[in-house]
Amino acid sequence: MHVPRADLQRQIEAILVAWGMAVEHAAITAERLTDADVRGIDSHGVALLPLYAEIRAEGRINFRPDIRVVRESAVTALLDADHGLGHVPATMAMERAIANSKARSSGLAAVAVRNSNHYGAAGVYGLLAARAGFIGVSMTSVWVPAIVPTFGAEPMFGTNPIGFVAPAANNPPFYLDMATSTVAVGKLKLAQLHGKPLPPAWAMDRDGRATVDPDAALADVRLTPLGGARETSGHKGYGLAAMVEILCTMLSGSVYAPTRERRHPGLAHWNIGHFMLALDPQAFRDAGEFEADLDDMIDALRAGRPAASGQPVLVHGDPECDAMRERSEHGIPVPDALLVAVRQIAADCGAPWLLS
Amino acid sequence: MHVPRADLQRQIEAILVAWGMAVEHAAITAERLTDADVRGIDSHGVALLPLYAEIRAEGRINFRPDIRVVRESAVTALLDADHGLGHVPATMAMERAIANSKARSSGLAAVAVRNSNHYGAAGVYGLLAARAGFIGVSMTSVWVPAIVPTFGAEPMFGTNPIGFVAPAANNPPFYLDMATSTVAVGKLKLAQLHGKPLPPAWAMDRDGRATVDPDAALADVRLTPLGGARETSGHKGYGLAAMVEILCTMLSGSVYAPTRERRHPGLAHWNIGHFMLALDPQAFRDAGEFEADLDDMIDALRAGRPAASGQPVLVHGDPECDAMRERSEHGIPVPDALLVAVRQIAADCGAPWLLS
Repeated sequence: MHVPRADLQRQIEAILVAWGMAVEHAAITAERLTDADVRGIDSHGVALLPLYAEIRAEGRINFRPDIRVVRESAVTALLDADHGLGHVPATMAMERAIANSKARSSGLAAVAVRNSNHYGAAGVYGLLAARAGFIGVSMTSVWVPAIVPTFGAEPMFGTNPIGFVAPAANNPPFYLDMATSTVAVGKLKLAQLHGKPLPPAWAMDRDGRATVDPDAALADVRLTPLGGARETSGHKGYGLAAMVEILCTMLSGSVYAPTRERRHPGLAHWNIGHFMLALDPQAFRDAGEFEADLDDMIDALRAGRPAASGQPVLVHGDPECDAMRERSEHGIPVPDALLVAVRQIAADCGAPWLLS
Repeated sequence: MHVPRADLQRQIEAILVAWGMAVEHAAITAERLTDADVRGIDSHGVALLPLYAEIRAEGRINFRPDIRVVRESAVTALLDADHGLGHVPATMAMERAIANSKARSSGLAAVAVRNSNHYGAAGVYGLLAARAGFIGVSMTSVWVPAIVPTFGAEPMFGTNPIGFVAPAANNPPFYLDMATSTVAVGKLKLAQLHGKPLPPAWAMDRDGRATVDPDAALADVRLTPLGGARETSGHKGYGLAAMVEILCTMLSGSVYAPTRERRHPGLAHWNIGHFMLALDPQAFRDAGEFEADLDDMIDALRAGRPAASGQPVLVHGDPECDAMRERSEHGIPVPDALLVAVRQIAADCGAPWLLS
């Protein structure tokens, strides 16, 4: 089934409101989720609703959070998300970073968020910055340890993604949105949903051995860091995952999942953290110069000789733009299994069903 | 031969001064290079002298640069390196970022450098920040396209490294220093120096096919991005390389190597750029909280169950500390071939030979 973005957004909103979320928070959350759907990031849009329903049932989300600025300087801020879903505090964090009072006047700002939850796709927050003319960086920690460090047998970091978005002049923004694992858990779930085996080198079993079975990989999540084994530099992906953890968890004062039980026994909420950075190119270049130079890079990449004819060089942001063009016209494809799951979620909470 | 750090530093200084560099610039440059040697980063210390001799002979380095601040705000600055080697302007950039007037008072600062050259190891600049209590980020672009983008046949980015260093309380700093390629060119050169074949998935030939021959790989540098092929998420390493290029080249107004000949025909200097960011944990946490939480993470990693007994979990910063302990006591091992090359360089420029 193909669903127009506006309809999907309204359906998500209706469910969030039925879950107890304030209307204005539900609107922002549904917008961030469908920002991902419309760009083809299928694992991080409406497909997240079953996960959210699950952690809601576990009592891990506060649907009426009092999101507060707990610390602030001219170019920094720390927000407390009060255990709500992460999309609203992360949006507020990036909007605060690019505000007239921060990066717009100083050229640079960083805002961290603590006591938060899943925030969807990392890149969509960078996009908020790029739309306003800034370079935007967005990162989050995750409450499920998944990435196994080099030489280790136990997962010690979530998939800890990095979003980096930069505005060009004639091209769409450069748009990088990546988990620091070889792949995100969402990709494993999609493979499971489609009944497909995993490619090798994506995941490990309980003993740190490679597995291609998505059920085995998801039963006890153990992902390789980007780079895979030591010889192919998996220590780098692991290092990036740790970097994201440091900027999201340690800098904000959130909870590091592997020591959670020892340090905070019985804690109900996940308390993960986010980190947002905005950088104004005009603090370094005259107006338009940065964007023109970025166009030059993107144009050179696009004009690059491909390894195989008919498969052009990948440019970060192009697949998302292609998806957006296609999906704006034909709607967002929602697999049957997901549609059934979302319909059940709506029924369970008494939300109206709008996707007939 | 094992050489005490101080002796190696003096030898490098003597060569740089003989090349025409001011004594105070030579001291800083030799210190940054031996910062790498003493930490076991063999590819980015004294082993760089033959490269520097080569680009000096090509007339690409100004050994009497007038390094200037060309743009500045309360939390940003842009330095022009005037085509000198990168170690001094990069040191000045990070020192400016952590100065009382910038990150120390505002919590955050970013300094970009343009018209620069090779700056050695990325991590050592992050270390300047961490020593002063800040989180330090250091990146540089490179004038040799090496990383082949996903689906491409031509290299479009240098090895574009990321240095990220964060201060702990009881542990040495978290120290990540990584090329965004699977491996750095220096690793290929070390393999060549030792006459060893390359592991597969590190490098490609002219047609984008994998090669294990270091001579073939270095004759026409084509490295895989971190992650390798598309299926193992090489598009992420490529995206990180592009991110570093954007922050170092486009943001500073330096030269993007693949379009250099078209846009700047006949240019003698390389004009690469660096990017430094410093972040004060105390802008977000009370004094000591960040460092204690980072200790908690590092301790958990170190205590993690290893995949194989006798091979503990890798912690970023530990190998560097182990090397520093060992090398402070026994000196820095310099392979014979390198010693011969450095001796020749000293003889060629009339520098005294101090490593008898």
